[in-house]
Amino acid sequence: MIEFYTWSTQNARKVSIMLEECALAYAIKPVNLLKNRQKEPDFLRINPNGRIPALIDSDGPGGRVVVAESGAILVYLAEKTGRFLPPSGPDRYRVLHWLMWQMSGVGPTFGNLAHFVAATDPDSPRVNGYLRATMAPEVYPYPLRRFMQEAMRLVAVLEAQLAGQDFMAGALSIADFATYAWFESIWPGFRVRQPSIDDDNPNVAAWMARLAERPRLQRGMERLAWGVDIEAATS
Amino acid sequence: MIEFYTWSTQNARKVSIMLEECALAYAIKPVNLLKNRQKEPDFLRINPNGRIPALIDSDGPGGRVVVAESGAILVYLAEKTGRFLPPSGPDRYRVLHWLMWQMSGVGPTFGNLAHFVAATDPDSPRVNGYLRATMAPEVYPYPLRRFMQEAMRLVAVLEAQLAGQDFMAGALSIADFATYAWFESIWPGFRVRQPSIDDDNPNVAAWMARLAERPRLQRGMERLAWGVDIEAATS
Repeated sequence: MIEFYTWSTQNARKVSIMLEECALAYAIKPVNLLKNRQKEPDFLRINPNGRIPALIDSDGPGGRVVVAESGAILVYLAEKTGRFLPPSGPDRYRVLHWLMWQMSGVGPTFGNLAHFVAATDPDSPRVNGYLRATMAPEVYPYPLRRFMQEAMRLVAVLEAQLAGQDFMAGALSIADFATYAWFESIWPGFRVRQPSIDDDNPNVAAWMARLAERPRLQRGMERLAWGVDIEAATS
Repeated sequence: MIEFYTWSTQNARKVSIMLEECALAYAIKPVNLLKNRQKEPDFLRINPNGRIPALIDSDGPGGRVVVAESGAILVYLAEKTGRFLPPSGPDRYRVLHWLMWQMSGVGPTFGNLAHFVAATDPDSPRVNGYLRATMAPEVYPYPLRRFMQEAMRLVAVLEAQLAGQDFMAGALSIADFATYAWFESIWPGFRVRQPSIDDDNPNVAAWMARLAERPRLQRGMERLAWGVDIEAATS
């Protein structure tokens, strides 16, 4: 039995995509971030870092497996099922390279970008008193610019990587699932700021469309879509 | 033959530690970041992301392996040698969990913290005209505070994780090497701002001392120490 501790975030969707693509049976265990449940003792025993997603597999190879961090969960599920990550050879490390690129680059950069976009938008409900007092309009461009430039650099790297191949590391892999979950989330915002972004990055746009056409991937996305009441859906 | 494309950075030191701990033969190929060599076509063919470290192993299992991203290189070397990452079972995923925690959390957070410390220090040579114009003293605390708070949260997570065990995932692993390379770099700065940090985090302090005592790890650190002229050392 796989217990999937989650809420509706980009990192969580990587895992729901993989679970659906592998047709694995799993039970969603909601960890309501709006109620800060990820910081409660019960969950900290599963992941001391206090972040979702996490997964417990009572039928893991070699015993009960407890694993957190989306990238580690993807590797775990790939090794359990033998899918979306070659077991050996050069192609295996190509996938791990691009998975780590997502984990260390795309995720933190897009996440910080979204944070500073919200933090510096005077109409955002996320702008609190401290931010209003410390991030005056004439000065807040710098952190925004830093993360926007890095995000656009990462888009360009992906565009180049997808030249002449359908997926990031050759065959469809966990690197695509991990990266798609973040691109799907942030791309509409990029489009607003740069309406030509699809035309400017045809390989990325085609790759996103190619992935979006996969019914199982879509089901993984939809199970943890923004605004879905996961507690109600699983109770 | 292992060719290690590198310069003297925290992410690079993870790999030099692992190469030394595994007693592997390798040739350092300097990629001079001061001359922006990581953005030149020759290197972009190895890592399209334009970042060191990267590694080429002409004798890889299954053929010539090209791998970039420090976390992926660590997994590659662990699987090549059978060391510092269990081949299967629950302990394997504990290591991958904490490796991903370093890759997605510690690295980006400490890196952004160091960036904003430098960017908001009026005495720093890294403060350029744009920063001076946009980050007035009364407003720049916010990004600094964001990354400092997250860094201190990560220190507390590691302190708790090391309670009752010598290493992050039980036995010594690539997760320790990856995390040590960043902690060793940033800890002196933390000490300046918070002189009680070693007393406040005795498990982290003891873990750092325990790792520092390892001669091979030290050799890995020293080969890529700050200020070492890697081009001169390898020419």
